[in-house]
Amino acid sequence: MASSNIPEKTIERLSEYRRTLLSCHKQGITHIFSHVLAGIHGITAVQVRRDLMLIGFSSDTKKGYDVKVLIDFISNILDSDTVTNIAVIGMGHLGQAITKYFNGRGLKLKITTAFDIDPAKVGQTIDGIPCHHMETFEEVVEDKDIDIVIVSSPSRVADELVVPIVNAGIKGVLNFTSRPLNFPRGIVVENYDITTLLEKVAYFVKENEENPTDD
Amino acid sequence: MASSNIPEKTIERLSEYRRTLLSCHKQGITHIFSHVLAGIHGITAVQVRRDLMLIGFSSDTKKGYDVKVLIDFISNILDSDTVTNIAVIGMGHLGQAITKYFNGRGLKLKITTAFDIDPAKVGQTIDGIPCHHMETFEEVVEDKDIDIVIVSSPSRVADELVVPIVNAGIKGVLNFTSRPLNFPRGIVVENYDITTLLEKVAYFVKENEENPTDD
Repeated sequence: MASSNIPEKTIERLSEYRRTLLSCHKQGITHIFSHVLAGIHGITAVQVRRDLMLIGFSSDTKKGYDVKVLIDFISNILDSDTVTNIAVIGMGHLGQAITKYFNGRGLKLKITTAFDIDPAKVGQTIDGIPCHHMETFEEVVEDKDIDIVIVSSPSRVADELVVPIVNAGIKGVLNFTSRPLNFPRGIVVENYDITTLLEKVAYFVKENEENPTDD
Repeated sequence: MASSNIPEKTIERLSEYRRTLLSCHKQGITHIFSHVLAGIHGITAVQVRRDLMLIGFSSDTKKGYDVKVLIDFISNILDSDTVTNIAVIGMGHLGQAITKYFNGRGLKLKITTAFDIDPAKVGQTIDGIPCHHMETFEEVVEDKDIDIVIVSSPSRVADELVVPIVNAGIKGVLNFTSRPLNFPRGIVVENYDITTLLEKVAYFVKENEENPTDD
């Protein structure tokens, strides 16, 4: 994806640890052992300690990690200093689901804008997000200071979005369509087709049936 | 995830290659070079060839891979002989988006059933899928021969779903809530929180800004 000293998988897990830690913090839990954090995420304590060592966190005590301190430490790695504005391209079921799901979580990432071409949606405010016509993409992106887009359009039009996205100076793309999208270097892209996730689960179910583990 | 000779990432890519190949096939394209397939997916031709070698496919000719033969070869690896029935737990925006998105693609995986607790949904047919009450989960799973569930319920109730899922004999779980779920060995689980994906893109955007690549 991009060059970084921290592996992609570690970044994913840090995001997941933080979510668990935030939930612990909300429940008044002040400390957590690495093996407890590991257990919640279905991995080993060694993995958790390795991830935290990679980011230079090593204040494991007899009481475990200090939840609040670890949250701040991870946030310092993951978050920008300022809020990052995100736009959704395609406000169908998936776009609306993502917006509802994501906003109101008090994160440094905010979905602030939507784009569509459906006259019934353009000009409307959907779940608190104003929906603009895709024709006005470049100006709205500049005006609203959008850095990242989520592509949840129909797959057949996904290719047509590449040029406007590049021209508008977008820096990161999370693509949920079934068309993998390629961008010039310097633009971060993650292609996530739900079909792939489901086919992967189905494959390992089949593998388990053919080669049952004996414990 | 589970024991298999083929790495998880290769399984994901095989699913992605197949989708591209199916689209080529539909357009009447009969052959494709490894570097073309690689380019579409933003990876190297070496990676494509390595993945296909891992599954024992090596019929690269001067014309490239035979699209139809490769589709069948990958399908033989990924697919079961029979249709796999899938249920969605939680028919909110996300559940409905996934159902709409996934069905009608002519795959060996079919979402056939939904579960919810909302009286406005239970007993209804949503996008062609009958919606049952979660109280009847075990009997409906047996009756409809469901192997895999997609969890798109509110995150706060996700933990309560573990026992019914285990009891009903479900073999694979694709979890979209923000609560990571753990299951006994033998049950395949993939936890995919959209927040993680977005935080990952945002992190690498930040990295790019701090350490711009020079080419």
